Amino acid sequence: MKAEARTDVVIVGAGPAALFAVFQLGLYGLRCTLIDSLDRAGGQCAVLYPDKPIYDIPALPAVDGLELTARLLAQAAPFDPAFLFSKTVTSIDPCGDEGFVTTMRDGATIASRVVVIATGLGTFVPADGGEPSLTAGPAGEWPLQRQSGGLSVDTERFETSRPGIFAIGDACFYPGKVRLILSAFHEAALMTQAVRRLCTPGGRTGLNYTTSSSVTKNKIVNQSVIKE
Amino acid sequence: MKAEARTDVVIVGAGPAALFAVFQLGLYGLRCTLIDSLDRAGGQCAVLYPDKPIYDIPALPAVDGLELTARLLAQAAPFDPAFLFSKTVTSIDPCGDEGFVTTMRDGATIASRVVVIATGLGTFVPADGGEPSLTAGPAGEWPLQRQSGGLSVDTERFETSRPGIFAIGDACFYPGKVRLILSAFHEAALMTQAVRRLCTPGGRTGLNYTTSSSVTKNKIVNQSVIKE
Repeated sequence: MKAEARTDVVIVGAGPAALFAVFQLGLYGLRCTLIDSLDRAGGQCAVLYPDKPIYDIPALPAVDGLELTARLLAQAAPFDPAFLFSKTVTSIDPCGDEGFVTTMRDGATIASRVVVIATGLGTFVPADGGEPSLTAGPAGEWPLQRQSGGLSVDTERFETSRPGIFAIGDACFYPGKVRLILSAFHEAALMTQAVRRLCTPGGRTGLNYTTSSSVTKNKIVNQSVIKE
Repeated sequence: MKAEARTDVVIVGAGPAALFAVFQLGLYGLRCTLIDSLDRAGGQCAVLYPDKPIYDIPALPAVDGLELTARLLAQAAPFDPAFLFSKTVTSIDPCGDEGFVTTMRDGATIASRVVVIATGLGTFVPADGGEPSLTAGPAGEWPLQRQSGGLSVDTERFETSRPGIFAIGDACFYPGKVRLILSAFHEAALMTQAVRRLCTPGGRTGLNYTTSSSVTKNKIVNQSVIKE
């Protein structure tokens, strides 16, 4: 199967988990394309409580969904994510050793080494009854192992039962899982460590601290809306 | 052993992990006393990089250690934490069914149902050679199971090998552990779920979402520096 486009990581969803994943993956040089069925970034935050204060985002004593989204977009901006809005993913097909091809309802396709499912719960409502299969099932019927309404993942890599497909945020489940945005940020960071090892097997293995890496710092400060 | 004071939760450390734990535990009505060997809150952030920008705190594209500390203090303020600064913990003694008594170098003692170790790595440097024992060992020699320089915890409760003693932030270790502040926030949130079940066995078990709980919202908005 040949795809029209290619990127490093396809992220299904464009909510807080997905946006922070763009930043984390970007720190290791990985480019992302985000696909969301909504017409804008922010997921549940932007649609369900755009102007309702949230009090439990660490170090932001009170922030509404729109401001949180704007802040995460600004943080991700230096890594130049591509967004495909108002698109529904209909299948994720394995593609030899090269990862996956993700197909959308309008027939558009994009290839990537890994796929990260970062949808809210909404995407996982029962779909229209096609045969449940990873290669042909509509969204919500991918035969990935599930538990308590989420995709089962381990707490080291946040990888689903299908190697190369990861899940973070409200889409995933593991013992102790709490559906808080702050947990999605942690899940994005640990998923990133697994994905960077997968994508750069011969590369450097050190953790990239933004406070001490001058390469990263320069990239963030010079390419972005962030001013010191 | 009789202690001079009593609180719900003793937190060893007063850095970002500890400060966010105050907020999380406070959402469930639990009061905290924080003990730190430094003379102020903020831990490594306040001492090592007070004015150096950090770029990977989610939704804060650039923030220095002092501002991050101030933001976390403001978020914790409605829950009225007690701070004991310039104090070193010398022992944590079991106290029957009622938890633990924490003793400081100057002889001061405080009892609590649970203890959360949220020190940075610094506290765990080799101490002065007393017999390693939970009841008498100086800090750094508690016979809690350790791995890779941290206290071994599970990823559901973030509890150490000693039931009732938890560890979060740079002090803890589990497979996949990355020493990022954002992970400490997640660890604080999941630890809180375990601690509230321990402290209120007959109480409500629902998760407290700050966006939807009016009791919590009123408490945060009315008692604090946070203005809508």
